Amino acid sequence: MSSNFRPKNYTPLEVSTIKNFIEKSEKIKNIIGDTNEIEVKEVGDGNLNLVFFVESKKNSICIKQPLPYLRVLKDWPLTLKRSYYEAEYMKTHSEHVSELMPKIYDFDSELCTITMEKLSPHIIMRHGLINGITYEKFAEDISTFMAKTLFFTSDLYLKAHQKKELNTKFILNTELCKITEDLIFTDPYMYNKNNRWTSPYLDKQKKEIENNNDLKIAVSRLKIKFMTETQSLLHGDLHTGSIMVSENDTKVIDPEFAFYGPMGFDIGALIANLLMNYFSQNGHEKNPGDRKYFKKWILNLIIEIWNKFENKFSNLWDEYPQGDAYPFKMFDNKNIIKNEQINYLQNIYNDSLGFAGAKIIRRIFGFAHNIDFDWIKDPKDRAICEHKCTNLGIEMQTNFHKFKNISNLIETAIKLDSENVNF
Amino acid sequence: MSSNFRPKNYTPLEVSTIKNFIEKSEKIKNIIGDTNEIEVKEVGDGNLNLVFFVESKKNSICIKQPLPYLRVLKDWPLTLKRSYYEAEYMKTHSEHVSELMPKIYDFDSELCTITMEKLSPHIIMRHGLINGITYEKFAEDISTFMAKTLFFTSDLYLKAHQKKELNTKFILNTELCKITEDLIFTDPYMYNKNNRWTSPYLDKQKKEIENNNDLKIAVSRLKIKFMTETQSLLHGDLHTGSIMVSENDTKVIDPEFAFYGPMGFDIGALIANLLMNYFSQNGHEKNPGDRKYFKKWILNLIIEIWNKFENKFSNLWDEYPQGDAYPFKMFDNKNIIKNEQINYLQNIYNDSLGFAGAKIIRRIFGFAHNIDFDWIKDPKDRAICEHKCTNLGIEMQTNFHKFKNISNLIETAIKLDSENVNF
Repeated sequence: MSSNFRPKNYTPLEVSTIKNFIEKSEKIKNIIGDTNEIEVKEVGDGNLNLVFFVESKKNSICIKQPLPYLRVLKDWPLTLKRSYYEAEYMKTHSEHVSELMPKIYDFDSELCTITMEKLSPHIIMRHGLINGITYEKFAEDISTFMAKTLFFTSDLYLKAHQKKELNTKFILNTELCKITEDLIFTDPYMYNKNNRWTSPYLDKQKKEIENNNDLKIAVSRLKIKFMTETQSLLHGDLHTGSIMVSENDTKVIDPEFAFYGPMGFDIGALIANLLMNYFSQNGHEKNPGDRKYFKKWILNLIIEIWNKFENKFSNLWDEYPQGDAYPFKMFDNKNIIKNEQINYLQNIYNDSLGFAGAKIIRRIFGFAHNIDFDWIKDPKDRAICEHKCTNLGIEMQTNFHKFKNISNLIETAIKLDSENVNF
Repeated sequence: MSSNFRPKNYTPLEVSTIKNFIEKSEKIKNIIGDTNEIEVKEVGDGNLNLVFFVESKKNSICIKQPLPYLRVLKDWPLTLKRSYYEAEYMKTHSEHVSELMPKIYDFDSELCTITMEKLSPHIIMRHGLINGITYEKFAEDISTFMAKTLFFTSDLYLKAHQKKELNTKFILNTELCKITEDLIFTDPYMYNKNNRWTSPYLDKQKKEIENNNDLKIAVSRLKIKFMTETQSLLHGDLHTGSIMVSENDTKVIDPEFAFYGPMGFDIGALIANLLMNYFSQNGHEKNPGDRKYFKKWILNLIIEIWNKFENKFSNLWDEYPQGDAYPFKMFDNKNIIKNEQINYLQNIYNDSLGFAGAKIIRRIFGFAHNIDFDWIKDPKDRAICEHKCTNLGIEMQTNFHKFKNISNLIETAIKLDSENVNF
């Protein structure tokens, strides 16, 4: 299913060829200045891309270049076209959330490179959370990011033809969607050679998942939603590894999975990754109780993010009612629309829970795991954290109606976290 | 919002230029034979297109050419591109239902003409139904048409990337979608200068519609579904005026509104138009009771169509489980999928009722009406039929859950039809 997209002049950059790359682009050269004194590092720790940091006296930049295969599995080809989707996503959303993404300086469609500002002193949020660092501005920032990106590309804001025209730019990002369809919605629920889990402790839970028909139907319904519902232009991979933070700043990166899909998929990705971090905390404690304050903070963070998102999304809807959905000229009585907003957001909330549940299961039983759990050295300790989190992930998919609001979800997370697991 | 699509050599054909048109195409000339003895008639009775019938000794053909505006309102421009969508739809679905559509001989992308077989002795089904003619093979044919067109273009049958690739061919049919969005889901529920209804009898009901907030929310939810849910490649206008019938044959025509949307929209269009015909029958009786048998037949027809559709769709799903939705390798226990089919089809049924309700309201209070009602000469008689049918249309949108199955719907139709309306 891999595309044959490979521009004629594509070749992977190396530390030694970066200088030449910069000199060929007037735009990038202007930012960097004198290329004789640049310092270049390759820092890509992901599976998919080369990432170079370039520092000159004048400035510092980040050059991201996709590889035509998945780094850990060279026999897994992966379209280079994904950098186009990433650049298009950033271009589209920069109208409303430019301050929450890195500045793009250049997109080179031959080398497939995106050259952007080097963020500093930002770190990958997942690392910060694993270390128990709190980010007081994060709820405010990420709720703005989600509310604006999801609202401004939906039928609530756009005319129907505008949305479909925008969708045409992303609709063929099918190779990256396929990764999600397989790795999130399918493989963890059956035998697949790429699946892994903390064995032998979680062997029994893995079997239970494979035999849980309600769960398999629930995840299949989510998969269909993912494949058919073109609500908004999504990031497509909005976990805490795709977010860089400093004490006072938040930047969303890596939107190469961008596509038109259900809003709850982005929101769910974030909620899932925060919940997984919560459940992983016991495994990172040096002394029992070390992370008590942090655990409380991160659960409150989830509540705050959802509430702020809900609030901001509704406000945008009030402020910009010009989309083709719910035409405002049809509703003299504004209370009617207010009530419908509650219903609409409840649906997004339900979707978010379901997708979050699916994201949890895939990170514990699928191919790609999170370091939140993986960095817990003792396998039994890790399995205990993962087991509890999995129980929540299953409930979120099969019984999302039980969690009428975000506080109900958090109460259940606390309850499951406090239960004993005996292996 | 009109596109500027106008091929350089586009010019409307006339009876006098048809001969020249045929002679320029080797393909069409071969079908027609000697062009010196052809007989040409312009027979388009629609609002959108020129239609020529051409008969030679050897064969007869139909040439359909779009006009760049709506015939009745010359200031309403309409993209010529629609013939491309029509031809693409027929090409796509002919793999599975070629016997249920006319044969296409040629698509001329400059003149935007579609040249196809001339159907004979077929008539437009709506005319037959108004005259009380029954078609015994119709339920079988149209249920096959709907089951196959909807199933084979869905994620149940296709791989996700195949579906999206197919969708790219239709996604920019936004001008024709816009007509639906406005004329079906918006205008009838508010003041619009193009609305009309049988006044003064229905003035009160029109006001009630404008003040019925539940109904306006219901139709807005259907509109969002129409704009966001890419389930299958739809005909987009599957009413009884888009179907030609003879005693033993059924052909679906005019798929220029084709787009990827919710399955229930096509099914609902058909059900709505059969229900409207049912409610119009009292107005066409020469003597009271004349149409008693026919009315019973048409209600049974609706039941039969739905039941056959449901059955055939499930069978296709059983037979071709290779799509990316509900991956069969994930479900060892086939009963699980069987149960889910019931749920899936219940959702399609619910959608179909809602869309049918919206189709009813638009034909009684919107811009474009049906001759089923319009040909009832006495305005009061007409209004009585329309009033009853409207009551059902409102219920189908706001209380579709009340009609658990198709028989419940038919019972309510009978009940509403039997009630007295006093103006």
